[in-house]
Amino acid sequence: MSKVPSRGFSRDEFMARLAAIQAQMALQDIGGLLLTTESDIFYFTGFLSQFWQSPTRPWFVVIPAAGSPIAVIPEIGVNAMTSEFMTDIRSWASPHATDDGVSLLAETVLEVLAQSQSCTLGINKGRETQIRMPMNDFESLMDRLRGSVTGLCVVDATPAIQAVRMLKSEAEIDKIRYVAECVSGVFDRLFAFAEVGMSDADLFRRFTIECLHAGVDTVSYLVGGAGQHGYDDIISPPSGRRLSTEDVLIFDTGCTFDGYFCDFDRNYGFGGVNDLAKEAHHSVWQATEAGLKAAVPGNTCAQVFGAMHEVLMNAGAMGETVGRYGHGLGIQLTEPPSFTPWENTILREGMVMTLEPGMVYAPGKMMVHEENIVIRRDGPELLSRRAPPELPVKQ
Amino acid sequence: MSKVPSRGFSRDEFMARLAAIQAQMALQDIGGLLLTTESDIFYFTGFLSQFWQSPTRPWFVVIPAAGSPIAVIPEIGVNAMTSEFMTDIRSWASPHATDDGVSLLAETVLEVLAQSQSCTLGINKGRETQIRMPMNDFESLMDRLRGSVTGLCVVDATPAIQAVRMLKSEAEIDKIRYVAECVSGVFDRLFAFAEVGMSDADLFRRFTIECLHAGVDTVSYLVGGAGQHGYDDIISPPSGRRLSTEDVLIFDTGCTFDGYFCDFDRNYGFGGVNDLAKEAHHSVWQATEAGLKAAVPGNTCAQVFGAMHEVLMNAGAMGETVGRYGHGLGIQLTEPPSFTPWENTILREGMVMTLEPGMVYAPGKMMVHEENIVIRRDGPELLSRRAPPELPVKQ
Repeated sequence: MSKVPSRGFSRDEFMARLAAIQAQMALQDIGGLLLTTESDIFYFTGFLSQFWQSPTRPWFVVIPAAGSPIAVIPEIGVNAMTSEFMTDIRSWASPHATDDGVSLLAETVLEVLAQSQSCTLGINKGRETQIRMPMNDFESLMDRLRGSVTGLCVVDATPAIQAVRMLKSEAEIDKIRYVAECVSGVFDRLFAFAEVGMSDADLFRRFTIECLHAGVDTVSYLVGGAGQHGYDDIISPPSGRRLSTEDVLIFDTGCTFDGYFCDFDRNYGFGGVNDLAKEAHHSVWQATEAGLKAAVPGNTCAQVFGAMHEVLMNAGAMGETVGRYGHGLGIQLTEPPSFTPWENTILREGMVMTLEPGMVYAPGKMMVHEENIVIRRDGPELLSRRAPPELPVKQ
Repeated sequence: MSKVPSRGFSRDEFMARLAAIQAQMALQDIGGLLLTTESDIFYFTGFLSQFWQSPTRPWFVVIPAAGSPIAVIPEIGVNAMTSEFMTDIRSWASPHATDDGVSLLAETVLEVLAQSQSCTLGINKGRETQIRMPMNDFESLMDRLRGSVTGLCVVDATPAIQAVRMLKSEAEIDKIRYVAECVSGVFDRLFAFAEVGMSDADLFRRFTIECLHAGVDTVSYLVGGAGQHGYDDIISPPSGRRLSTEDVLIFDTGCTFDGYFCDFDRNYGFGGVNDLAKEAHHSVWQATEAGLKAAVPGNTCAQVFGAMHEVLMNAGAMGETVGRYGHGLGIQLTEPPSFTPWENTILREGMVMTLEPGMVYAPGKMMVHEENIVIRRDGPELLSRRAPPELPVKQ
């Protein structure tokens, strides 16, 4: 077990992130970049808070073409946002009756565009993104900017932001490795606390407690499923069903440490599980082996998908299960890129990914397998402890 | 302790919610209502999944002016969405290279508008809402609809949706009461597990485990702060600081049961906490008393705010702390309406609210207090166990 990583990041780390995004912005002549979401704002400022769960207040950060990010946030967040790196913080009393930060944000964006002598604003418009502010306010902001900037151009900054966030620093990787190690230990001792007869709600609760004891900060994501010789749903919460003999059980969890996720799953059999399920487990394990071999710098995501897909097709897969065989990982449970047949992003050192081959092996029966890796020069480093090749079965 | 409520809701409950929103839609001549967020879709369909934490895939529900809701969702969600109530489910393989549900959604919206002979589409545009889909896809959807519907009118359905969701059924209230009772018990025995010298990360972890043992499904939201004779920040995660003598500690938590939140906080002193902090605690407790008296059907939210504000001003408050003195509660940690000076929503029976008066009582020192209530004919029913009038201090 590695030691607990320190919390937060150095000022140098944030300076490096800022330099990287400003280099990307320069390629698109973006004078100002508007961020509205929890993950982008955490990445570029270090502001970490569960307060994002309240939808009441919008939070904004504007990154200029040169110079430091500017936070435009509710007063309640000023103390938590302030740091050696974040010094330009503008705030308003939120919630507000008529103007929840819109005029303050418009002013800030106009100032930033003027300073950079650019009329191009970057926002997130692409795949896997959203604008976290009320649509009325967004429209009002755009109206104000268009009224003040001749030839205002609003461009999609999604590829720029994703290109920067995809490459993890060693400090980021340390946090993901730590939380993955905590959870690997819990998965390894699952039979010590999971027993036939337990309700799924109790199983979920017990699993969560074990992860917390192991050292994770939060068990943000925990889904699972169980069924006779296989499961047919992996995204549901507890239903009240009790674990039964001949069940195959899957737990898929995203735990966090200091705002960074692991995301992997494990499968377990109870009693006389049939051979079909055991063979399916071995097939997805072998598909992961093929993925591990293919996950090297220079290969595309589509190539890694292809390597895993071939194994599953040869094993008689009747279909895949979740639309892809893995994805990026970091501040969010799932980040770009994805292992799909059409994803041409090239793997580079420092990308943290999941390998998640899955197959339908009988009508209504699926098997999904997942590991966490970081792309290294000579092949991937496993962050999760490798699953056993054969389905573990508790007799 | 009340018994554990059953999970899910009856078909009748969903039929009642549908009838209520369709009545609201009729007032605005809305032919179809597009929902994109976790909370709205859970409320109107019963679809509960932590899978929403992955931003990769969009999920949609369209409610027609008459007839059943239509789900337009990734294939991975079909099993979990299907129920006695939800039968019209249209899906696509997501993530998709070029069309992540947009054309299927456009088709569905056009069908619904044609059937209702209306050219008015309702979407969430207002306070505390967002559109959960990529902006590029939203623009593309709007272009398609405008190209096919002459005189398409897109209206803000936020007030309509909020009017329906604000009024909780007894089945909803049972879940909130249950989770609030679980957490009340943990708060009452906090001194049994919280000790001077513990790091905040350990305190957070221990508190979470206690809540899980008490019966909650998730500890989705947990923030806290501690400081000498008072704290100055209530939205931050653990920093590594150790609890010290003369500290005032606050924990504010939103735990869930079956998708429903409680949200309240408690304050604790350790060792020789000064009188200023103790008086501030008594003042916010008294402000809550005033709020409890004012929280009756027919009063506006602004009136309840006023009742609490008067107590705090008389107690020498140097300012308030979070921009409001409480808010709605249910599927989300915070829901409309808010107790602010400008919120004219009238309280009605069945609204579940938090009372959350807070004050700055010395420079850099705040005190926040919170209870959960449901508005009843003859005055509020407390869902959280009432905090003690005096700050509990562990010597």
